[in-house]
Amino acid sequence: MRIYGDLNSGNCLKVKWVCDALSLPYDWIAVDTLQGETRSPEFLALNPAGQVPVVVLDDGRPLAQSNAIIRYLARDSAFVPRDPYLTAKMDEWLFWEQYSHEPYIAVCRYQMVYLGKPASALDPDRVRRGQAALALMERHLTGTAFLVGDHCTLADVALLAYTRLAAEGGFALQDYPSVCRWIGDAERALGLAPVGATA
Amino acid sequence: MRIYGDLNSGNCLKVKWVCDALSLPYDWIAVDTLQGETRSPEFLALNPAGQVPVVVLDDGRPLAQSNAIIRYLARDSAFVPRDPYLTAKMDEWLFWEQYSHEPYIAVCRYQMVYLGKPASALDPDRVRRGQAALALMERHLTGTAFLVGDHCTLADVALLAYTRLAAEGGFALQDYPSVCRWIGDAERALGLAPVGATA
Repeated sequence: MRIYGDLNSGNCLKVKWVCDALSLPYDWIAVDTLQGETRSPEFLALNPAGQVPVVVLDDGRPLAQSNAIIRYLARDSAFVPRDPYLTAKMDEWLFWEQYSHEPYIAVCRYQMVYLGKPASALDPDRVRRGQAALALMERHLTGTAFLVGDHCTLADVALLAYTRLAAEGGFALQDYPSVCRWIGDAERALGLAPVGATA
Repeated sequence: MRIYGDLNSGNCLKVKWVCDALSLPYDWIAVDTLQGETRSPEFLALNPAGQVPVVVLDDGRPLAQSNAIIRYLARDSAFVPRDPYLTAKMDEWLFWEQYSHEPYIAVCRYQMVYLGKPASALDPDRVRRGQAALALMERHLTGTAFLVGDHCTLADVALLAYTRLAAEGGFALQDYPSVCRWIGDAERALGLAPVGATA
């Protein structure tokens, strides 16, 4: 399997983490999104939406959308609950992440880290919605170790990707202590070094 | 099962269509989102995100996020392909819908229909992204009857919801003839009256 991705992208890291945790072999094809490499005809043939990550299976078939990819790769693993209702609650978080979390927290981070915007220049509505997403997670995680059930699922993988980097988007993670506790637990479950622990 | 929804919301209609097509019994609880009914403490206990649709199963357990709900309700039906790769392609469309289609096409419609904005007052970037979403669908549907495989899946259900209403958001659907053909085919597959056919 080939993974077309950018290690600076949380969406791409979700795929890498799942492959590493499940010992799925892959070749990582680095794609520089800032240089327009997702807009080439060759790339658009793999994903007409022009976004990373994309995986190409060994038989040549492509698959895009980070949460669809990890759901496919982990479909028979402990990352997906066996109980259909818990699977549905996992899916609820996956869709919530793409609609109500990533467009605010990841985009603020992108604008600060890659476009060089100061926090004061961010769209206040985007910041407010990012804070609301973190507050919702805080309320939920105050009562539970992981997002769904009693162990790490794809819901945690998907939400971890940009939540652990939220400070880079100007968000004050220390205001969300249960989220901070969960970040550490999810990182340990995935065998990741704590964010900021590498130079 | 209870469905908390608003018949003006495409996201809610997805759930109704799947239940009707699969003859799943339900009570429809009308929620007036414009009157803030999704912000009551009782509603937030069902869905902390404060959004419809929400379903409450017969055992009292709630589930939110339209695409997670239909994925749960239709999990053993022909709406979900049996082949894992095709299921993943269906998921790819479900996540794409929530990230790259609904925030543009549904939101333009909302602003025009419910906030009374003229098309000229819409955010040009939002309009452009909605047009890009329709263009991507047009290219795909020129070569295939349905979005995934050879029959109607949840990908069609999810994309149909707001695509068929795109004209209400100022989008010129006649510029996308394969999309128009597909709208009719998907409506027939779901047993729906054509949009605009009812007074």
